[in-house]
Amino acid sequence: MYSFFIATITILDGIGIPIMAVLSAAGILGLAVGFGAQNLVKDIITGFFILFEDQFSVGEYVETQGVAGVVEEVGLRITKLRDWDGKLHIIPNGNITMVTNFHRGSMRALVEVRVSYKENIDRVLKVLEGVCKSVNDDYQTIITTEPKVVGITALGQSEVVIRIVAKTIPMEHWGIEMELRKRIKDTFEREGIEIPYPHQVVIRKDV
Amino acid sequence: MYSFFIATITILDGIGIPIMAVLSAAGILGLAVGFGAQNLVKDIITGFFILFEDQFSVGEYVETQGVAGVVEEVGLRITKLRDWDGKLHIIPNGNITMVTNFHRGSMRALVEVRVSYKENIDRVLKVLEGVCKSVNDDYQTIITTEPKVVGITALGQSEVVIRIVAKTIPMEHWGIEMELRKRIKDTFEREGIEIPYPHQVVIRKDV
Amino acid sequence: MYSFFIATITILDGIGIPIMAVLSAAGILGLAVGFGAQNLVKDIITGFFILFEDQFSVGEYVETQGVAGVVEEVGLRITKLRDWDGKLHIIPNGNITMVTNFHRGSMRALVEVRVSYKENIDRVLKVLEGVCKSVNDDYQTIITTEPKVVGITALGQSEVVIRIVAKTIPMEHWGIEMELRKRIKDTFEREGIEIPYPHQVVIRKDV
Amino acid sequence: MYSFFIATITILDGIGIPIMAVLSAAGILGLAVGFGAQNLVKDIITGFFILFEDQFSVGEYVETQGVAGVVEEVGLRITKLRDWDGKLHIIPNGNITMVTNFHRGSMRALVEVRVSYKENIDRVLKVLEGVCKSVNDDYQTIITTEPKVVGITALGQSEVVIRIVAKTIPMEHWGIEMELRKRIKDTFEREGIEIPYPHQVVIRKDV
Amino acid sequence: MYSFFIATITILDGIGIPIMAVLSAAGILGLAVGFGAQNLVKDIITGFFILFEDQFSVGEYVETQGVAGVVEEVGLRITKLRDWDGKLHIIPNGNITMVTNFHRGSMRALVEVRVSYKENIDRVLKVLEGVCKSVNDDYQTIITTEPKVVGITALGQSEVVIRIVAKTIPMEHWGIEMELRKRIKDTFEREGIEIPYPHQVVIRKDV
Amino acid sequence: MYSFFIATITILDGIGIPIMAVLSAAGILGLAVGFGAQNLVKDIITGFFILFEDQFSVGEYVETQGVAGVVEEVGLRITKLRDWDGKLHIIPNGNITMVTNFHRGSMRALVEVRVSYKENIDRVLKVLEGVCKSVNDDYQTIITTEPKVVGITALGQSEVVIRIVAKTIPMEHWGIEMELRKRIKDTFEREGIEIPYPHQVVIRKDV
Amino acid sequence: MYSFFIATITILDGIGIPIMAVLSAAGILGLAVGFGAQNLVKDIITGFFILFEDQFSVGEYVETQGVAGVVEEVGLRITKLRDWDGKLHIIPNGNITMVTNFHRGSMRALVEVRVSYKENIDRVLKVLEGVCKSVNDDYQTIITTEPKVVGITALGQSEVVIRIVAKTIPMEHWGIEMELRKRIKDTFEREGIEIPYPHQVVIRKDV
Repeated sequence: MYSFFIATITILDGIGIPIMAVLSAAGILGLAVGFGAQNLVKDIITGFFILFEDQFSVGEYVETQGVAGVVEEVGLRITKLRDWDGKLHIIPNGNITMVTNFHRGSMRALVEVRVSYKENIDRVLKVLEGVCKSVNDDYQTIITTEPKVVGITALGQSEVVIRIVAKTIPMEHWGIEMELRKRIKDTFEREGIEIPYPHQVVIRKDV
Repeated sequence: MYSFFIATITILDGIGIPIMAVLSAAGILGLAVGFGAQNLVKDIITGFFILFEDQFSVGEYVETQGVAGVVEEVGLRITKLRDWDGKLHIIPNGNITMVTNFHRGSMRALVEVRVSYKENIDRVLKVLEGVCKSVNDDYQTIITTEPKVVGITALGQSEVVIRIVAKTIPMEHWGIEMELRKRIKDTFEREGIEIPYPHQVVIRKDV
Repeated sequence: MYSFFIATITILDGIGIPIMAVLSAAGILGLAVGFGAQNLVKDIITGFFILFEDQFSVGEYVETQGVAGVVEEVGLRITKLRDWDGKLHIIPNGNITMVTNFHRGSMRALVEVRVSYKENIDRVLKVLEGVCKSVNDDYQTIITTEPKVVGITALGQSEVVIRIVAKTIPMEHWGIEMELRKRIKDTFEREGIEIPYPHQVVIRKDV
Repeated sequence: MYSFFIATITILDGIGIPIMAVLSAAGILGLAVGFGAQNLVKDIITGFFILFEDQFSVGEYVETQGVAGVVEEVGLRITKLRDWDGKLHIIPNGNITMVTNFHRGSMRALVEVRVSYKENIDRVLKVLEGVCKSVNDDYQTIITTEPKVVGITALGQSEVVIRIVAKTIPMEHWGIEMELRKRIKDTFEREGIEIPYPHQVVIRKDV
Repeated sequence: MYSFFIATITILDGIGIPIMAVLSAAGILGLAVGFGAQNLVKDIITGFFILFEDQFSVGEYVETQGVAGVVEEVGLRITKLRDWDGKLHIIPNGNITMVTNFHRGSMRALVEVRVSYKENIDRVLKVLEGVCKSVNDDYQTIITTEPKVVGITALGQSEVVIRIVAKTIPMEHWGIEMELRKRIKDTFEREGIEIPYPHQVVIRKDV
Repeated sequence: MYSFFIATITILDGIGIPIMAVLSAAGILGLAVGFGAQNLVKDIITGFFILFEDQFSVGEYVETQGVAGVVEEVGLRITKLRDWDGKLHIIPNGNITMVTNFHRGSMRALVEVRVSYKENIDRVLKVLEGVCKSVNDDYQTIITTEPKVVGITALGQSEVVIRIVAKTIPMEHWGIEMELRKRIKDTFEREGIEIPYPHQVVIRKDV
Repeated sequence: MYSFFIATITILDGIGIPIMAVLSAAGILGLAVGFGAQNLVKDIITGFFILFEDQFSVGEYVETQGVAGVVEEVGLRITKLRDWDGKLHIIPNGNITMVTNFHRGSMRALVEVRVSYKENIDRVLKVLEGVCKSVNDDYQTIITTEPKVVGITALGQSEVVIRIVAKTIPMEHWGIEMELRKRIKDTFEREGIEIPYPHQVVIRKDV
């Protein structure tokens, strides 16, 4: 490529044109236009697809490029996300290659309850189902699938882990999780079911 | 490349054409078409192969690019995955380089049971085989390979670890794992087999 | 490309021009102009968009490229960030692909309080609400949303974790968090609510 | 490059050809062919070498690109691996840069035994050699190199670690490891050799 | 590109020129010049901006590309950093994309003090303020902002964490931190304020 | 580039040649040749240098690209490494950018011995030197540099760490390390030198 | 590009030249020369700068690309490093982008001493200074800056951490560190200064 470049220069130079000076000025300008256009175009095309395919819109909570937040603005060139903690992420659309949208359907609330090995599991499951029912009754407007005890997800070092899952309208799952936790704590206290501290068997030897 | 670019400009400019203005406008347009086409084409070709080779289809649970979910839509340009927790992942097909499909054959259910060092291993194995048989009897519709005690996978710090493996129809393995865990807990309680807490030998010195 | 290059050389060399020497000198110069222009232009274009779109301005605390600090200078080519610990980060604008701005709206103050399992949660919540109110009263000028007890975020190994959230004017959230912590410590002491140490159940066996 | 592009457009446009419309259509088509060909060709060439050099074939357990599984299909374009847990990995051949094959020779079974510091090492080694011999006698069809006590690989915090190594026909090493572990557990119990729990020396001070 | 290459070769070869030999020699030379120039130019341009914008100069402590040290030499092509531990880092300027300079303003000294939960926080704060004052009095020449107790940064598992912050002239902050730590240790000893060891609540069960 | 492409198509198409069909077929073929050649050539050139510079040869244990093994085959295109655990790594030579060879000189055997704080270090060093001498006497054929006590590498939490280093012929260092460990264990037992368990000072408070 | 390629082929083919066969052979050769030259040139240029700027020379201990070792050979194309543990790293010069040289000035010896909280810090500092002096006296030939107690670098969970720093001639710092550790251990024993084990406050509750 540069051979032509050089050849042209040599020829033009021979016929008296101060080509080098012209070139540098023009070349930088040309590059500037090229680069500016390239990134701008890349941003705009991605932006266009985000809007056209409705990948996310203002007010939805999305995650992309390792940051998350409520969409505050979807421009053609940049997207602004407002993080829960108040930070504003400004992302050129061209960098958005995958989007995770938290507002396109029911969200799952998931609580894992730790129970002592000495408890009778059938009784614990029954008590937890009662908690699930009571939460479902009180939060019918935001719950889309009734909380349900799924089963034992681990026989841990000091505890049996039981999982409860529900579905809620978008972004209300954290609230339901907290409510479930509070009621489980209260009910277990009332029913005398132990949430175990870490256990350790100590074998003593004296010296 | 740009030498030609410049040479052409110099010549055209000499014959009175406001080439620079024309160029910027046209160049940006050209770039836009090029880029748009390039990414679009890349997405579509990958999309085509996904469909043509039936790599995954709607309703299957797949993993790709570090996210997983049930396929909700396989378009030519983008694929939508619904995560278990309700999030919707929107992935341009061009980014999908490897796919892991959870719906193309039996899935493995795997439970690792921790047993005290003081237990007789042969007796424990016999009890576990009983549990396996009972689970197999009750879930014949979803189990494709009977649960089996594979053997000792670790002589751990405080416990002997025994592995049980079964095969189920797609996506039912988690359910079988939970059922196995529940029955093991119940049976061990009944049979007096200890699931050990962490052990530590303490040697006391007084000062 | 190089075929032309070589062809041209061969021809020119044939007509007696010491082309090789001319080429090396000119080529290096050309490359230098090209590279210099390329990076410079990339920096300047990004710099232009930062300024034009007002992504951040002097005095704001921003995070980008893994470093954070108060913006001390936004040039066309480089941005200077003053880190909290006094370090000065000098970043060419072309490397800034995503910006997180801490000065564009209220910031969230978040305190997680650990409380003993033996405490009555309703009483604890009431006490914490009193703390929130008192902090709100004393710091009305910097608080934009009153501190609020959000709920139980974890049933931990030795403690129940309760979350308190407030909103403040930019960069004052750390101060409010510290004030909340101090008053919670004082109030819990007065009210006899236990912030628990890690708990462990020890089962002793003698040898 | 685009200068030619533009120059050509300007000329053709001057002689009345609606070049822009033709171009976009043709260009996209051209790109599509190019891209499709490029990736396809890359996949096929790698696929060709996999087959030609017999890097792996159907039924072998291989690892590549961070996933592992039994090869279910080696096509010219894609390879399908069936993971142990039932997942199907679909990998375009062009992404396979390094392959690890588990079926090209004997596989090593390795068991590390933890023994109490108070045991006499020579006696432990003798007992372990007995276990090795007995396993070798019972599994001669799958063992290719007799299990052997290699030596002490660590003087750990609470235990001496002794390593046993054997060679088996492909994919049978996990079975041999489990059998070795079971027999070691049984033999140690019978012989009164201690597999130690973590030890700690506690120095008590009263306040 | 190579079509031309080949076409030219075919033609020239037809007219009897041993083109292949000429080409290889010339091409390698051309490439060498190109590459050498490219990297050299990239290094020099970055070096130029480092010097021109005074990003750092000899004697300053900077961090870049994951290494840190006192600048020993800023050449046009390479920069040499002397690490604290005596190592000499030699970095081509073209690899320096972001620079962190420790010598452009006051540096922050930060000490976090752990205090027992049983201490009265107001008393501790008063004592710490006394320490801050005394350090400030004795080191006025290097301190630019008086040490100040910022507040409680954590209600930890076994301790309340209090933060002290000061500003010093460049590179003297480590000295001030050490001095603060020594005086805090001495003063706490004198005043009977406890720096707590990790705490654990042990609930004993006998078997 | 594609402008020419398009221009040519337009012209040829005008004179009645079904250029598109010809092109796709020819283009794919051309690409295939190009790609195949490119990767093949890259592999072969690296392979050539590996052989020419004798970077490693069959039977040597090398590490490259994150895997290690005994070289089983060095082809012009691919290298095969046999891992200790029997796996066969097949690596295209073009991916080998750095090689670590374990067979080009003496290998170091390194053992770190943990000793109780209460031991007299001079006595321990003397005992360890005795062990070193005895190992050296019995393994003179594989030891190239006599094992030597280097010194104290750490004053750890519960132990003083002493390092012993020897040099052996390639790949025999692991054997010497194991032998050293066994003899140290035996000698310490005989001499009454304590290899300490983790220590902890416990300060008791009753509630 | 390939349009020309194709066009040329079509034309030449029309005039009866078996162009395809010629092309593949020539093209592969051309590519081979190009690639070989490119990497070779890149290696040689970097190698040239390493030698010209004397970045490191045979016998020096350097670190680059994540590996370290004594330079055994600096060729124009590759560099060979001998690791402490006997491994030989063979690195093409083109991959060396940053070099850390351990032989260009004094190296720092750094020892961090853990001391019990109950010790009087002033007394400990005095004792440590005595150790520093004695080491300095005995190793004057390799020490370039006398060992010095820098100060308290941490008020840890169970200990006060004090740092000692010295400077030595290249590669002798590890020896000085070991000597310092040995003398500190001996002196503390003699002086009755406690190197503390981890401490824990245990609050007992009985059930």
